[in-house]
Amino acid sequence: MPELAPEGELAVVPIGDFTTEAGAVLADAHVAYQRWGAFAGDPDGVNNVLVVEHALTGDSNVADWWSDLVGPGKALDTTRWCVVATNALGGCNGSTGPKSLHPDGKPWGGRFPALSIRDLVEAEHDCLKELGISRVHAVLGGSMGGARTLEWSLLHPESVSAVCVIAVSARASGWQIGIQSAQISAIERDPFWHGGNYYLTDKTPRDGLAAARRIAHLTYRGEQEIDERFGAQPQQGENPLGPHRELNQRFAVNSYLDYQGAKLTERFDAGSYVVLTEALNRHDVGRGRGGLIKALAASQVPTMVVGVDTDILYPYHQQEHISRNVNHLLAMAKIVSPVGHDAFLTETRQMNRILRNFLLLSAPNGLDVGPAYVGDEYYI
Amino acid sequence: MPELAPEGELAVVPIGDFTTEAGAVLADAHVAYQRWGAFAGDPDGVNNVLVVEHALTGDSNVADWWSDLVGPGKALDTTRWCVVATNALGGCNGSTGPKSLHPDGKPWGGRFPALSIRDLVEAEHDCLKELGISRVHAVLGGSMGGARTLEWSLLHPESVSAVCVIAVSARASGWQIGIQSAQISAIERDPFWHGGNYYLTDKTPRDGLAAARRIAHLTYRGEQEIDERFGAQPQQGENPLGPHRELNQRFAVNSYLDYQGAKLTERFDAGSYVVLTEALNRHDVGRGRGGLIKALAASQVPTMVVGVDTDILYPYHQQEHISRNVNHLLAMAKIVSPVGHDAFLTETRQMNRILRNFLLLSAPNGLDVGPAYVGDEYYI
Repeated sequence: MPELAPEGELAVVPIGDFTTEAGAVLADAHVAYQRWGAFAGDPDGVNNVLVVEHALTGDSNVADWWSDLVGPGKALDTTRWCVVATNALGGCNGSTGPKSLHPDGKPWGGRFPALSIRDLVEAEHDCLKELGISRVHAVLGGSMGGARTLEWSLLHPESVSAVCVIAVSARASGWQIGIQSAQISAIERDPFWHGGNYYLTDKTPRDGLAAARRIAHLTYRGEQEIDERFGAQPQQGENPLGPHRELNQRFAVNSYLDYQGAKLTERFDAGSYVVLTEALNRHDVGRGRGGLIKALAASQVPTMVVGVDTDILYPYHQQEHISRNVNHLLAMAKIVSPVGHDAFLTETRQMNRILRNFLLLSAPNGLDVGPAYVGDEYYI
Repeated sequence: MPELAPEGELAVVPIGDFTTEAGAVLADAHVAYQRWGAFAGDPDGVNNVLVVEHALTGDSNVADWWSDLVGPGKALDTTRWCVVATNALGGCNGSTGPKSLHPDGKPWGGRFPALSIRDLVEAEHDCLKELGISRVHAVLGGSMGGARTLEWSLLHPESVSAVCVIAVSARASGWQIGIQSAQISAIERDPFWHGGNYYLTDKTPRDGLAAARRIAHLTYRGEQEIDERFGAQPQQGENPLGPHRELNQRFAVNSYLDYQGAKLTERFDAGSYVVLTEALNRHDVGRGRGGLIKALAASQVPTMVVGVDTDILYPYHQQEHISRNVNHLLAMAKIVSPVGHDAFLTETRQMNRILRNFLLLSAPNGLDVGPAYVGDEYYI
């Protein structure tokens, strides 16, 4: 039986020297993870492990960011399932990232190599192997987590029985690369960025990270939802219509975006933001596999695909593209929501049905996954 | 008969001290314009003047940026119509803008007041009045030009017989304000911006303006068109998948966006970009008129509304909103194109039909506007 960290506690697993897809070496890399629910079954065969993949600025604390979906009695029922989540390699919440120390004792900073989504998956796979788990029941996640999930099914079909790929595409689109690069540029243009080598200075590229997040946030939400909430209203107590433009006289939407930007700078590292955004730019399941269609057609893992009807960042046609081309489609589900991309985080009721159905459709014979869920009007 | 500038030549019209909607005063303001085709008719009544409004970084040279649509025999046939286009107040191509000299002999710079779309219209209206024209046949334009056009119909219904409002909304949406403010922020974060007072320095906020344009350009084009053109392809001779992220190893889409950004810095002033983007943030035909619905319902001018099915920036539902609420809808036309917002500039064949039909529908009895156009499958 694998020895796992105590429930909910962050643990760090050394995975040794890690060679990236592009050939750089991260010496003495490590991957952090958290676990909820007891392991049951065969660590090399049928078992109850669900690997949940976080999005760009998420972390391994899935019981927090998916709190309505992970826990006793919830869709990912931790009385039945063993939920495992890692922090992405390149991140800033426990795994090796740009702020981590290089073997020379100084932060990696700008020396940190570029990562691909495949690198994130391989590091996670190494981590599970170190934990004694060579196969899991399912991998699932949305956005960057969806990209990691889809790559899992192609890199390690022998290691997973089913995947649920949410709100993502089979490769970065030109538009995504463009808007993601605008975010990287906002950070790189910050005078405190110093080519990524700011960890030993007394300033951080906070303004750049906030600017990046403001742009990103507009791609995470539906344009009609943003308009319904804020329209062209002034922020309370401010007048954005005065005789001169003033930074502290804002429209309500800008106050909201300022808040989102500032909040991120308190919990996330700009260097990790650049590394993981670059990994999203490099997302392409077709690379080295004869292109997207061949890669998806060769998939060996039953795959459920989920999208959001109002997603600006990963428009629904991109999930249709995966569904139509993936070899073994388990099911297709559409989240109907004004919220846009973030709906996979906010539309709990719909996600609850989708995840319960995913587990029902994918569960092996003899593994008790709870009562069947009836009456979903969304995913058939 | 009004004395107009020679065909195609830029002329500058002083309009005196100009008081903005928010109460600031621009001393000794002037508006630049160009004209094609001979004036005919009554300058205070029925005549053949078509006022064409340019978009954010456009200018009065409509025979250039709409070259397939303006000229002898074209949709805006200059053998029949007198086409007049002004440079927007706040711009940098002849009209008073931030780089213009304040009465103290130094550039306005950061002292330049905030403008609204209504200010742009009033300045243009003043300019025409100075030219001896108190009424025109039609006003038309797309994007910021569409916003000006719609405001024309509400501010000066006595001065125009019909308007054609293209690819715009009745007010800035929350999403638009957010993404436009991201562009302003990219400029304001440039170390050479100096609060807008860079005209007497030896540097310009070129990088900031280029960054703003890269973001903007992604809202001007359709996401599927961008993907079809560039996908995740590397720029020729560059490798964006190397072991480290490098600025000169780019995806093709980023090379394209870099080009678009750099090109703008050669022809446009960052200060004007901020002023006119801020004017777009303030676009709201409902302000002071009891809200959007009342304002549109009170419109006295026959209005044609045109949108693009794939427009990200001004989604088609915004043109439907105008059409459903405007008092006198002349016609509604949808441009079908993968190109997105810019389709009103690039889809010449469709725009040709749309503009010919607009003139046919709006032409006064007795004014020869050429043969009727038959067979439009788009606008009914």
